[in-house]
Amino acid sequence: MVDEKTLQNIPHLDMLDALHGPFVPEHAIKDSKTLAQREKLSNKVVGSFEEAVRLSGLRDGMTISFHHHFRSGDQIVNRVVDKLAEMGFRDLTLAASSLTDIHAPLIRHIQSGVIRRIETSGLRGALANAVSNGLMDIPVVFRSHGGRAYAIEQGELSIDVAFLGAPSCDPYGNANGYSRDRDTGVICGSMGYAKVDAQYAKKTVILTNNLVPYPNAPFGIPESDVDYIVLMDEIGDPDGIMKGATRFTQNPKELLIAQRAADVIYASGRFQNGFSMQMGSGGASLAVARYLREMMLKSGVKASFALGGITGSIVDMHEEGLIKKILDVQSFDLKAAQSLKNNRFHQQISASYYASPSNPGTAVNQLDVVVLSALEVDCNYDVNVLTGSDGIIRGAIGGHPDTAAGASVAIVVAPLIRGRIPTVVEKVGTVVTPGKTVDVIVTDQGIAVNPHRINLTRNLREAGIPLCSIEELKEKAERIVGKPKPIPYTDRVVGVVAYRDNTVIDVIRQVKP
Amino acid sequence: MVDEKTLQNIPHLDMLDALHGPFVPEHAIKDSKTLAQREKLSNKVVGSFEEAVRLSGLRDGMTISFHHHFRSGDQIVNRVVDKLAEMGFRDLTLAASSLTDIHAPLIRHIQSGVIRRIETSGLRGALANAVSNGLMDIPVVFRSHGGRAYAIEQGELSIDVAFLGAPSCDPYGNANGYSRDRDTGVICGSMGYAKVDAQYAKKTVILTNNLVPYPNAPFGIPESDVDYIVLMDEIGDPDGIMKGATRFTQNPKELLIAQRAADVIYASGRFQNGFSMQMGSGGASLAVARYLREMMLKSGVKASFALGGITGSIVDMHEEGLIKKILDVQSFDLKAAQSLKNNRFHQQISASYYASPSNPGTAVNQLDVVVLSALEVDCNYDVNVLTGSDGIIRGAIGGHPDTAAGASVAIVVAPLIRGRIPTVVEKVGTVVTPGKTVDVIVTDQGIAVNPHRINLTRNLREAGIPLCSIEELKEKAERIVGKPKPIPYTDRVVGVVAYRDNTVIDVIRQVKP
Repeated sequence: MVDEKTLQNIPHLDMLDALHGPFVPEHAIKDSKTLAQREKLSNKVVGSFEEAVRLSGLRDGMTISFHHHFRSGDQIVNRVVDKLAEMGFRDLTLAASSLTDIHAPLIRHIQSGVIRRIETSGLRGALANAVSNGLMDIPVVFRSHGGRAYAIEQGELSIDVAFLGAPSCDPYGNANGYSRDRDTGVICGSMGYAKVDAQYAKKTVILTNNLVPYPNAPFGIPESDVDYIVLMDEIGDPDGIMKGATRFTQNPKELLIAQRAADVIYASGRFQNGFSMQMGSGGASLAVARYLREMMLKSGVKASFALGGITGSIVDMHEEGLIKKILDVQSFDLKAAQSLKNNRFHQQISASYYASPSNPGTAVNQLDVVVLSALEVDCNYDVNVLTGSDGIIRGAIGGHPDTAAGASVAIVVAPLIRGRIPTVVEKVGTVVTPGKTVDVIVTDQGIAVNPHRINLTRNLREAGIPLCSIEELKEKAERIVGKPKPIPYTDRVVGVVAYRDNTVIDVIRQVKP
Repeated sequence: MVDEKTLQNIPHLDMLDALHGPFVPEHAIKDSKTLAQREKLSNKVVGSFEEAVRLSGLRDGMTISFHHHFRSGDQIVNRVVDKLAEMGFRDLTLAASSLTDIHAPLIRHIQSGVIRRIETSGLRGALANAVSNGLMDIPVVFRSHGGRAYAIEQGELSIDVAFLGAPSCDPYGNANGYSRDRDTGVICGSMGYAKVDAQYAKKTVILTNNLVPYPNAPFGIPESDVDYIVLMDEIGDPDGIMKGATRFTQNPKELLIAQRAADVIYASGRFQNGFSMQMGSGGASLAVARYLREMMLKSGVKASFALGGITGSIVDMHEEGLIKKILDVQSFDLKAAQSLKNNRFHQQISASYYASPSNPGTAVNQLDVVVLSALEVDCNYDVNVLTGSDGIIRGAIGGHPDTAAGASVAIVVAPLIRGRIPTVVEKVGTVVTPGKTVDVIVTDQGIAVNPHRINLTRNLREAGIPLCSIEELKEKAERIVGKPKPIPYTDRVVGVVAYRDNTVIDVIRQVKP
């Protein structure tokens, strides 16, 4: 993965040599050259990827893990699996915190038997399409971010070797999504999902293009959780790392929805000094921050913290003094990553701290308001963020069920119709977030409150917000685009959707060709 | 421990109420008052110390633990054990990261059978004296800071309930040695020793006088490691917390020793850009920082990091740009604590990260130079920091053997004679740090280099530093004050000294009355 020439071309190796003695010493020596070897052990940088794999004890049938902090700029998953295929490995379980459209090259590794099982938060693009069409013999397991942390903590998901890309790492393994010493252009901010893998994996391999001098403080992953370090010439595409689900919408329909969601927050009874919030990814939900900011400036209300995947909009509000602290499990853009590096109240948290149900104090439980996206919502308020109207996988669970369960007011925002496809339906294709945890549906065509939320309903009515029933929204959609036809599925299960406590909440079936 | 009135008088409870609903709700409710209870669970504040103990499941014979970050201002150990005695507990093992002269009240709890065993880094004052005179049926186990972390990690020291004082904590247990939101006057900086207890104890109870709003970010102890929180009116004496072993010497003999130790560092071959260092506590070793600073200013050499117990002198050098980063397991004074709160390259680390031998990358292994104190050094270079010349316990192991083993150059500084007592002797009363890990002895009467360190000897000679043998130092001391008389010990063992890998390196015997 990195050859001798590349190693020689990494300019700071000389400096490390000066600081830490020979680059890969078998043992450091207390009084160099002539005396007894010291207790000081060698650093963790190994000469090649293959050597790290050999040292890790990886064998056929084991479980390897990855994080998705590099988003669509990730080069780790494909390069590692390519290499493992070359090395002859088979029947591996690939447990990523999420996978995206750039991971289509995995298809051939599944076909050839290198990858036998997948666990992930989501799938998109050609890989998702292939899975929905029956690519894999064993169903993909989809977990939420909190559910994945919980599964790792409980041993249900046992990781043999974690391969974690890191934008900075020192020779002993202190790794982070940035470096206060020296960045190389690749910066991902928080390493929140990777922290859990590093802590629990039997062996952890850090892959980095930026070896910095010890101590790489602050660190997201402590060296005590790291076994081996592999230097790579590239680990990710900086543009892709900060691109993806976080586009800033100019769509008038999405802006209208965002404005209405902000109105709902304002009237919910939770919009008061010290409130807490999370904005999910997706156009409309990200846009809510913009309107919330105006409301906060006008009313003088300030938030105690913002949680979750963090965007530049949240950072702006933090730097303006509108949000006191930021708890960051994933930095959605460069501004968020740089804020984590620079702002003293912007804190990196692990997926477990964020959302694991193992923990009564988990951060999602402290949320007043969360704004979430949806592919489909149904008359039970069940939400689908995983499969499209054609039944094909095209999304990710993320922290959706975690934050919906934890937040006092969970608001789902969606256009009533996308193209010719209704969002509010009789019954969602795939239940990801159960309706009992969802409070309000905000569409461009109307707002529906979960009828179990009597106080919230009263608050919104008293504020003059027009409400309708979820059935009315569904009928309105049907009047415009007609009743959606049932998706032609086969009986074969291609995906299992785990709820955050790792019970099965739904399955995804193979689509008929 | 805290009564209703005290609870009512803590001013910020109202604010918490506004933020988080009823102060100790059984469960938070998604849509308050009339609707189904939510998944959001209650916070961790319990109404009384007794309730926390009951919930913790503490039983006779179990192991309780404490940290010593409050140093001689600590009120936690005595108050907790008083209370446990009142509650009728017996045969407890008390495992503190260290104990000091203020813990004399433990004597009566040992006599009455409440405390049956002690593990600690050190003992001083009346308690130490009583232990040396046969107070306990079972010998006290002394461990280094790294050895204790290792023993906890390996399960050799299994903590049932940790009682950890914290200068700030939110209602879910995010705790720290300071608060960026609001300090109450009690601030201890790093919680490095406590972090390991919180992580591994079966139950962790935080005792605090400063309940701050969620999220108490940054946190030293994450809420996921905390089970119960008890509010106390006082947890420690701010003056005592920042006082103790860290006096700044004006003693000319100590200043001379410090100057010579700085000369040794300068000539050692390790004084170059990017070097790393730790200054132990104790007058002379702390004073070395002063001379080191002058050398660094004059030569332009800068350090990559300072490690360990951190003092204001180190902070000054950091803020001047002489030391790039600080890794802080324990803040020795207020300036250090405030720097941890304010300086972005001043990082809190756990005892395990600092010194556990479980971990090849542990921070002590990255040390170029450490300066350490000693009660006695002998002709094998073995060092005693635990028992006096009368055989009575009067010290603490601390990180002494950890840093000596890890550092490239471990320098022990001591006056050749204290009062009428020689420091360099034929054979130390108690071996704490083995001579094979000790490199240089610097006294006011001469400097001796471990003869196994050939390169270091050459470097110092070439720099014109006069050296003598350790035997010459011993003989010089004997010429002045005579050969010390053997200590009259009984056969009974009152203390076991564990090396950092938890093997027994020496025992301490009961003194003859």
